[in-house]
Amino acid sequence: MATITILGAGAMGSALCKPLVDSGWNVRLWGTWLDDHLIDAIEEQRPHPRTGAIVPAAVTTFRSDEIETALAGSDVIVMSVASVGVPRVTELALTNIAKAKALWLTSKGFCPNDEGVIQLLPDAIRSIAAKKGIEVPPIVAIAGPVKANECAEGMPTATIFACRDGALAEEFAARTSTPLYSIASSDDEVGVEVCAPMKNVYAIALGIADGLGEATGIPHHNLKAAAFAQAVKEMSLLGHSLGAKAETAFGLAGVGDLEVTGLSGRNKVYGVRLGKGENPQEALAEMERLEQTVEGVPAVGLALTLVEQSDVLTLEDMPLLRAVAGIIDPQELLDPLTAIQEAALPRRISNC
Amino acid sequence: MATITILGAGAMGSALCKPLVDSGWNVRLWGTWLDDHLIDAIEEQRPHPRTGAIVPAAVTTFRSDEIETALAGSDVIVMSVASVGVPRVTELALTNIAKAKALWLTSKGFCPNDEGVIQLLPDAIRSIAAKKGIEVPPIVAIAGPVKANECAEGMPTATIFACRDGALAEEFAARTSTPLYSIASSDDEVGVEVCAPMKNVYAIALGIADGLGEATGIPHHNLKAAAFAQAVKEMSLLGHSLGAKAETAFGLAGVGDLEVTGLSGRNKVYGVRLGKGENPQEALAEMERLEQTVEGVPAVGLALTLVEQSDVLTLEDMPLLRAVAGIIDPQELLDPLTAIQEAALPRRISNC
Repeated sequence: MATITILGAGAMGSALCKPLVDSGWNVRLWGTWLDDHLIDAIEEQRPHPRTGAIVPAAVTTFRSDEIETALAGSDVIVMSVASVGVPRVTELALTNIAKAKALWLTSKGFCPNDEGVIQLLPDAIRSIAAKKGIEVPPIVAIAGPVKANECAEGMPTATIFACRDGALAEEFAARTSTPLYSIASSDDEVGVEVCAPMKNVYAIALGIADGLGEATGIPHHNLKAAAFAQAVKEMSLLGHSLGAKAETAFGLAGVGDLEVTGLSGRNKVYGVRLGKGENPQEALAEMERLEQTVEGVPAVGLALTLVEQSDVLTLEDMPLLRAVAGIIDPQELLDPLTAIQEAALPRRISNC
Repeated sequence: MATITILGAGAMGSALCKPLVDSGWNVRLWGTWLDDHLIDAIEEQRPHPRTGAIVPAAVTTFRSDEIETALAGSDVIVMSVASVGVPRVTELALTNIAKAKALWLTSKGFCPNDEGVIQLLPDAIRSIAAKKGIEVPPIVAIAGPVKANECAEGMPTATIFACRDGALAEEFAARTSTPLYSIASSDDEVGVEVCAPMKNVYAIALGIADGLGEATGIPHHNLKAAAFAQAVKEMSLLGHSLGAKAETAFGLAGVGDLEVTGLSGRNKVYGVRLGKGENPQEALAEMERLEQTVEGVPAVGLALTLVEQSDVLTLEDMPLLRAVAGIIDPQELLDPLTAIQEAALPRRISNC
């Protein structure tokens, strides 16, 4: 039985245990220095505090100081920590990562390097390793429309494994799919990695449309749908500018993940607050007080920088990204309705 | 001021009056023999019974026996009757349609000809005219994420005008766009016409996922998102098989319209009933009793026939269409969860 070690015992790391156990992997789960209370719950077979699901008893748990034991002899290592923790955990695990057959990656985000250049996480990991003269094995970017709690409960879930080595992605996908966790494979690492953080940005826009509806009592469904289509277009453009296939954004990684993120989740909830007229900073502070991290907010700033650093794209190509940025920026405080409307509707000089 | 005559005073025909008046058209609205009560409401400036919105007073109304007066001298004619009424209204209006600069089309559906071959509506209209030796002017297919009631209320709306003559589509789009009704243009008549009825089929699938969540108390968002992505893929495939551009399904006409149709509407509501375990025929009968026509249901059967008549596609390529068909077919009565799951998740031989 092949051994897989998941780094990070949060929502996605713990949720992944379910299909991995079901598909016959020997699963180890390592918690960071922030995860002790999560490991406690898992070991006591209580519901995981973030997903509400019970992690399969077959999973072996490890505390933060046991990382060497957790990783020793692992065939595959899965990076599942919050994106800000990726550099540190990569350094901690690097020697063992180099020995593994592959590094899977569920962490998602944009990562500026020391020179301020925005990197996708696989490139960031490869850069960190290269500085130490270490080569990482093939990276498998895992994305798609996966709410962790549903995955953890064994609800039907589709996902996508993307690796530059498409045959390896396919091998792992076939090896790990179950009837309830079904994996498509792709060789478009960049496309998948671009969609994952961007869908959080655009879920804020979808939430704004919902919030406008709640505030006025009149649904803004036409606006939400127009914003959805524009978001997909911008994810495709941004990915393509970085070498991705345009179609990746039209499948599970883009359209699918945006759909699930627009149905629920913190980015959408934050957008609803904005659509209802709350001040962006106050709404964010309130959500942080409730321990609800809104991943889309830092992603907005990093995505703006990424576009500014592009040789082929400008912010003119990304009006919906620009609108969300202007709505949440305390210096701009754009009106949400006007900004989303101007960005999402096909732009023309009016003849009125 | 150019004159435009809308044929059909139902939800979409009456809703279109708002942006047409706003963009400076001289608007005439003709009601069919079924529309007298709608024309009554419009003339008395009461809310339209189907949209709840008041039709602008600038619109001139005509009763069913006034079709000649309604059409005389019109620059553009808009076909906005239910798809089953299109052949008859086409014949009634044909002489005047031939004199117009263009025929716009908001009616949507698949239309079998006398030999049982499934046609898209523009082809059906051109066939009817050709049999009488009459040539119709360019047809502009109007689609996209437009809920009629929001359009009628002047809520922000994006739509798409598609004409084989792309420059003419663009001319009308520029002429008719307002800040709140913004029109993209396309030369892909087929792509737009395929997406419009198919999104009703797939909205049933999205509703089923919602209904499964309501029935069990556990959201099936991952499943809904996977079904959404699969639906977009199938709309693109079907369109492409008929000569459409694959990307039309990835924009406002496909992704956008599916999003809005999955948010509300009768097709989605019918799907929710199925997901909650109602018998498909009983659920349909109940909705018909409430005068809620579920357009997706006849579209399923016609779409199956369309695929069967295809030289390049088979039902294997359209598993989600096949699943919806099997769920609503009284001879099959497939289990909704199992059928949607098998169709929407990437299909693999499980290794469990």
